Amino acid sequence: MRVNSVAVVADLGESYGNYTIGDDDALLGLVTSSNIACGFHAGDPRVIDRTVAECVARGIELGAHPGYPDLVGFGRRLIEASEEEIRTDVLYQIGALDAFARVHGGRISHVAPHGRMGSIAQTDAKHARAITDAVFAYDSSYIVICQQGLLAEESRKRGLEVGYVFLADRGYGDDGWPVPRSHPDGLIYDPAAIGDRVTQVVREGTVTTVDGNTVPLGHDADIVLLHGDHPNVLENGTVLRASLAAEGIRATGLREVLSEKAALAAR
Amino acid sequence: MRVNSVAVVADLGESYGNYTIGDDDALLGLVTSSNIACGFHAGDPRVIDRTVAECVARGIELGAHPGYPDLVGFGRRLIEASEEEIRTDVLYQIGALDAFARVHGGRISHVAPHGRMGSIAQTDAKHARAITDAVFAYDSSYIVICQQGLLAEESRKRGLEVGYVFLADRGYGDDGWPVPRSHPDGLIYDPAAIGDRVTQVVREGTVTTVDGNTVPLGHDADIVLLHGDHPNVLENGTVLRASLAAEGIRATGLREVLSEKAALAAR
Amino acid sequence: MRVNSVAVVADLGESYGNYTIGDDDALLGLVTSSNIACGFHAGDPRVIDRTVAECVARGIELGAHPGYPDLVGFGRRLIEASEEEIRTDVLYQIGALDAFARVHGGRISHVAPHGRMGSIAQTDAKHARAITDAVFAYDSSYIVICQQGLLAEESRKRGLEVGYVFLADRGYGDDGWPVPRSHPDGLIYDPAAIGDRVTQVVREGTVTTVDGNTVPLGHDADIVLLHGDHPNVLENGTVLRASLAAEGIRATGLREVLSEKAALAAR
Amino acid sequence: MRVNSVAVVADLGESYGNYTIGDDDALLGLVTSSNIACGFHAGDPRVIDRTVAECVARGIELGAHPGYPDLVGFGRRLIEASEEEIRTDVLYQIGALDAFARVHGGRISHVAPHGRMGSIAQTDAKHARAITDAVFAYDSSYIVICQQGLLAEESRKRGLEVGYVFLADRGYGDDGWPVPRSHPDGLIYDPAAIGDRVTQVVREGTVTTVDGNTVPLGHDADIVLLHGDHPNVLENGTVLRASLAAEGIRATGLREVLSEKAALAAR
Repeated sequence: MRVNSVAVVADLGESYGNYTIGDDDALLGLVTSSNIACGFHAGDPRVIDRTVAECVARGIELGAHPGYPDLVGFGRRLIEASEEEIRTDVLYQIGALDAFARVHGGRISHVAPHGRMGSIAQTDAKHARAITDAVFAYDSSYIVICQQGLLAEESRKRGLEVGYVFLADRGYGDDGWPVPRSHPDGLIYDPAAIGDRVTQVVREGTVTTVDGNTVPLGHDADIVLLHGDHPNVLENGTVLRASLAAEGIRATGLREVLSEKAALAAR
Repeated sequence: MRVNSVAVVADLGESYGNYTIGDDDALLGLVTSSNIACGFHAGDPRVIDRTVAECVARGIELGAHPGYPDLVGFGRRLIEASEEEIRTDVLYQIGALDAFARVHGGRISHVAPHGRMGSIAQTDAKHARAITDAVFAYDSSYIVICQQGLLAEESRKRGLEVGYVFLADRGYGDDGWPVPRSHPDGLIYDPAAIGDRVTQVVREGTVTTVDGNTVPLGHDADIVLLHGDHPNVLENGTVLRASLAAEGIRATGLREVLSEKAALAAR
Repeated sequence: MRVNSVAVVADLGESYGNYTIGDDDALLGLVTSSNIACGFHAGDPRVIDRTVAECVARGIELGAHPGYPDLVGFGRRLIEASEEEIRTDVLYQIGALDAFARVHGGRISHVAPHGRMGSIAQTDAKHARAITDAVFAYDSSYIVICQQGLLAEESRKRGLEVGYVFLADRGYGDDGWPVPRSHPDGLIYDPAAIGDRVTQVVREGTVTTVDGNTVPLGHDADIVLLHGDHPNVLENGTVLRASLAAEGIRATGLREVLSEKAALAAR
Repeated sequence: MRVNSVAVVADLGESYGNYTIGDDDALLGLVTSSNIACGFHAGDPRVIDRTVAECVARGIELGAHPGYPDLVGFGRRLIEASEEEIRTDVLYQIGALDAFARVHGGRISHVAPHGRMGSIAQTDAKHARAITDAVFAYDSSYIVICQQGLLAEESRKRGLEVGYVFLADRGYGDDGWPVPRSHPDGLIYDPAAIGDRVTQVVREGTVTTVDGNTVPLGHDADIVLLHGDHPNVLENGTVLRASLAAEGIRATGLREVLSEKAALAAR
């Protein structure tokens, strides 16, 4: 039996000073969970304050979205940092975000490493260890958001819960993994297709690939990510939520999805 | 009756990346309490990690030392920030430092605003409100380190404990306040004199001024600051600790000093 | 006799990394002159490179727009910097911008200090000296863009040419100066009115004030600034250019306007 | 016949704000040429101003030392930047430094990429192209300081002069290249040995390796680098200059060394 719920998340709070990125107000009406930038690759203390306050007011789960200290590169460029640098940079960012969570009566629920730090952690042991060490040391009840790979392995090794993310607006290959953005079908532009793909992956655990085949996803789809820089993100999110509702799939926080999954597994 | 104890503090963790400032190893052997830079005007996550770990290992009280986001100016230049900017900058820095305190099994005990942010908060209501709002919202058990003025007033208004700081190596005027550094006697270079001054202010509550008079300090001397950039800081600290020991004055954490003071007041 | 030409300028190149501000492509079609952010309060080397290349390709005059080193505050917050700090910060930024001008076959024509650095320089002697010292030392043929006040005085004292700026979309008071943005008529929203105001100030040297009076502007109107963050900036600029054309007033670079003015004065 | 001169260089101007690194005053008495940090990995406009002024006053050749925009990492961590990012970052830094050169009546003579940007450019074509494109576009008379590899190749391809650097205080292997710092003989601590090695490489073009063999250096030794963070840098430099003097080898600027080399080659 499969879980009948899924979390919907977007990267939020990426504005900085006088610079605005993303339509957070609209996105906040579509998600159940948040990845909030922590001030290193994006975000500043005012943006964090307002984003956390909004999430708490709307009952949206709080997630930390730490990245490299590279504002001009938006955290998308690999930095050959040491394990100590990565661990302490992540820890610093979690603590900074948590200050706002505490003040607004909320609680961080998960950590999702951003951009290149997040992608390299799937395959680089140093990054995977550093990130999970920081999370485990700070609060071992936090969930780590992963695709497959070393980050998930290191999380499980430390007893951290893992939430697997499905990229709703990205094309997948026959191997069950996203194809590069540069692939002709790397980005999906049809909101209805996005809605269908998410209900399919939740209901069946499969994805229709860029080659037209239906294959099992390499992992569960506990949480679905909407990319805030997708040109149709708001329409994508609206159709996605409608599809979930129409199918009777509950959109809820990641912690609840994982609880339901655990309860099913325990039967 | 007067308290028979005093806290000894220095600004610590001000190094940054490849840049080292101050002889923290030596200072850590002389203080009972720390003001730890939080990464905005000085400090980085590695420096914070090591400084907090050392303090916890040695039983030194942890203090947050937030400043303006101005590394090149070392937090010594006024920034005409809004109240929201100051409040959220301070909150962010406290949370970031607290992450390391938690991970190392320690606990932040006080907040001492750094440099120009700290000095302007004595006379500027916006700064005083912003800083104390951040502290109060995060943890109302934290002590705020002040000289006199609006920061102390605003702290008391919110029910925050105040720890009054005496600048051990600075000259004071007949009004009971430090004279500017540019005054011929603005900085005291004789370690023995520094030791004597501290024992006098603890025993009698008075200070011998640059004009040779003995006047009451405008406030209690709960905690004594050694400036890390004083050329003789290590000798000053060593003689100061010896003087306190010789006089039977206990050098201890600020929280204990304030507890003793409260107990005396309650008699 | 009055000059029959005016320069039209906007702040350009204020985007940063993944962050975009302003519709530079459209503005580039409306201006004769540019104030290009130099990487301290806004702008990064890629943005500068593209902005300078575009300006050179279109024959738009290059202007340096240096500001405080305060990206999160967008250069809008006073920093109590020393004269040496201001001078060297401005010099550094001019040189950095000039590298791109040289590489693209262009030439910086003027310097317009940005935001709070620019406004305080009208009344603060330290800022006025520091900015003009930097400009004079680097290239004494550069024009300094000013309203009235100390910056203009210090520029003239060093023999630097001054270009006086009229704020096309801002309300002016009976004293011939802009009223604060917070004034009910501080910002002008009617593009036709903006066109009329500019032709009036060029033709007559007068401005119709927020109280309905017609008064002489306190200075010449050599260059007219369109604020890029005005909600109607593109419409304002389009109507303004049409008004100038309809009146037979030439929109051209600032250097040409000042040459024409000098030629008239020499008659 | 071999050139009878060599340039002596050190990295200078790496201090930042309140942070001091290196004993620049002493080093300035030992070098003939400078690699001056440009504000991205180290240095700030005040430090640059003073360093350039000192070099010009003492007749020391000015070199630009651009690095990654990574102050906390001191430019020692690879950043996976795009070719455009590297090119424009380098161009920006050269222009910024050149502003101070012009103002102080000096002239940049060479460009030496710093730290990881410099080392990766020996083997990564993207870095080598980006750096040399920036140098060539800005001033094709600048010399590029290289060891061997792609940076030298790309420089020659554009017609840029190359100055080959010998690392005076580092051990070399039998392949004619420096061994890693982590090698037991990676760093040389005997000042006399450093003096001997430099005279040998200038006189004979050979180096005695960590295995005790004498091998030809893979390239000329036009300029000799003293590492400022070597614990004995001042003694090393003093002995080195004395050795050169004793051997009748002229210590002079890199441009003169290359001119002498060209004249010899033209015979």
